[in-house]
Amino acid sequence: MHNKLFIPGPTEVKEDVLKQLSKPMISHRGKEFSALYSEITQKLQKLLYTENPCFISTSSAIGVMEACVRNCVRKKSLNLVCGAFSKKWADIVKACNKECDIIKVEDGKAIKPEMVEEKLKTGEYDSVFLTHNETSTGGMNPLEEIAEVVKKYPDIIFMVDCVSSMAGVKIEVDRLGIDVALASVQKCFALPPGIAVFSCSKKAIERSKELSNKGYYFDFVEFLKYHEKLQTISTPSIPHMYALNHQLDKILTQEGDENRFARHKEMGQFTRNWTIKNGFELFAEKGFESNTVTCVKNTKDINVSELIKTTKEKYNLEFGNGYGELKEKTFRIAHMGDMTLEEVKDLLEKIEKEMK
Amino acid sequence: MHNKLFIPGPTEVKEDVLKQLSKPMISHRGKEFSALYSEITQKLQKLLYTENPCFISTSSAIGVMEACVRNCVRKKSLNLVCGAFSKKWADIVKACNKECDIIKVEDGKAIKPEMVEEKLKTGEYDSVFLTHNETSTGGMNPLEEIAEVVKKYPDIIFMVDCVSSMAGVKIEVDRLGIDVALASVQKCFALPPGIAVFSCSKKAIERSKELSNKGYYFDFVEFLKYHEKLQTISTPSIPHMYALNHQLDKILTQEGDENRFARHKEMGQFTRNWTIKNGFELFAEKGFESNTVTCVKNTKDINVSELIKTTKEKYNLEFGNGYGELKEKTFRIAHMGDMTLEEVKDLLEKIEKEMK
Repeated sequence: MHNKLFIPGPTEVKEDVLKQLSKPMISHRGKEFSALYSEITQKLQKLLYTENPCFISTSSAIGVMEACVRNCVRKKSLNLVCGAFSKKWADIVKACNKECDIIKVEDGKAIKPEMVEEKLKTGEYDSVFLTHNETSTGGMNPLEEIAEVVKKYPDIIFMVDCVSSMAGVKIEVDRLGIDVALASVQKCFALPPGIAVFSCSKKAIERSKELSNKGYYFDFVEFLKYHEKLQTISTPSIPHMYALNHQLDKILTQEGDENRFARHKEMGQFTRNWTIKNGFELFAEKGFESNTVTCVKNTKDINVSELIKTTKEKYNLEFGNGYGELKEKTFRIAHMGDMTLEEVKDLLEKIEKEMK
Repeated sequence: MHNKLFIPGPTEVKEDVLKQLSKPMISHRGKEFSALYSEITQKLQKLLYTENPCFISTSSAIGVMEACVRNCVRKKSLNLVCGAFSKKWADIVKACNKECDIIKVEDGKAIKPEMVEEKLKTGEYDSVFLTHNETSTGGMNPLEEIAEVVKKYPDIIFMVDCVSSMAGVKIEVDRLGIDVALASVQKCFALPPGIAVFSCSKKAIERSKELSNKGYYFDFVEFLKYHEKLQTISTPSIPHMYALNHQLDKILTQEGDENRFARHKEMGQFTRNWTIKNGFELFAEKGFESNTVTCVKNTKDINVSELIKTTKEKYNLEFGNGYGELKEKTFRIAHMGDMTLEEVKDLLEKIEKEMK
């Protein structure tokens, strides 16, 4: 009996998906592989409403975040920081010896389009990094409105970390003018961790061509070169590709992507109502709460670690403590991936029972 | 019925190993994960005869090859090139905007220790890159003798690509003074591709601390920081870690590493004898043939693609064509991982039959 995961990654993976990982290996330079690659990339394009090529990186999303820096920051980026993961992206810019300015809002608060506008109109930046859904705070930034602002600056490469939103929330890449939309697969895709996926615009490729010191493993130009052969730049995680292809069928055909997004919305709303009903507060700013993970402010000063431990031991259900400095001050319920509203209800009932 | 793989990666993966990939997910920041991590790293230390920490990278080996460049080349490296993969390592040095000098021998020939000595005594280099076993040519460089030379230069960081030798050939990391020994797991480990492993000396960490522009995803200092917490720098491929832990038990305890190395030697010898007996020549220089993959020079001018196709269709056995420009001019029989001598004999018999 394993613990069912309501932590914000890795999320619970269904049995049929896990089984896909155990299929025999094939050559990554053969026809069978190319057919698999082609299917996946087309399905990702559909999911992301884009005609840009979609690439697979054998790395976590952090790897692709670094790729964005190396390929698309010419001189100076604008980083929109509202929590641990958006802060990390800014750290990576510096770790790649590039400059960045930061717009920082208090953890849990959202980035507003006017803040972005004010900075961009100085003309100092060549790239913008936005974390769509901050897994550490349960806040979701207004992607649509920020995208409208960024669009006015044609030289900007707009890169969006959709790690905990992609496949759970609708993201229309082409309409919003997103140059790179990236995610790992252990969140709303409900796959085991091990690969990341991203869409990559022509503009991002052109920027990459301008730059040197990109290395090889994360070079977008190399990604495209192999993509055109329906291959990956080096031997990829074939088990994850089997599972991703299977899961994309379930998402797009079996459940339907619109239904999937609606289910996430419903689970988010239910969890937020539960939070208020139980006398807690939401950590995220009102109007900017995430539909994939709820961060509950521990206003009742309960012992979070103890509650997590009990729920795990008694019911084999595992939810998350606060991230980093928010540990004990918050706790997080992930309602993402293949979780159903019924399963979320069940968890919340058990938590409620144990709090009494 | 799948094709049994005698290609030089990915190699055939046994059913019990594949099953390990399908175990339910766990949090990568919890105790259960740390116990798994700890077991793996200790077993890798045993396999590599080292007290250096052994790290896991969610990437292919190419990623770790790039990490070596970013973390350990201060100014200029010496790259020992004898085939496609060692050439790629030199290309990566340049793609990271660092300098390198190349010792190049003809494909299939081996790097000799005196060539290395001649270059190193100029004092121009701070690092050496050696490909132990060139998967593209079936040649194995004299690691022991080259290591003796490199040892005389205490400022050099010595990095060895053991991609197609680790877990198939004995590599005594500490005795040989190897600073970084790296491999992906889809070769002699007989796991699916998706992660890479490497040992990392204190000297390599010290060098890394000197350098900037390392990024985050491949920063050795970050690897060590998380290693000390028995964690990985970001969410790793947990399925691969389950499988690696299981496979390391089989290698070290069930089969025994010395027996495993002996089996590879025996398969190598058998395949070389078969090559000669059938009127072909070995592509690798005499005395430097690999025990994990044999590259057969197509001196009889057979249609290699056709033979591969027939063997696959008739017997569900797949071996490899030559790599890159060596296609059709050579073919490659991988005898690595969990393959037995009986299975190699069976393949070679079938090939022989179809050639007639």
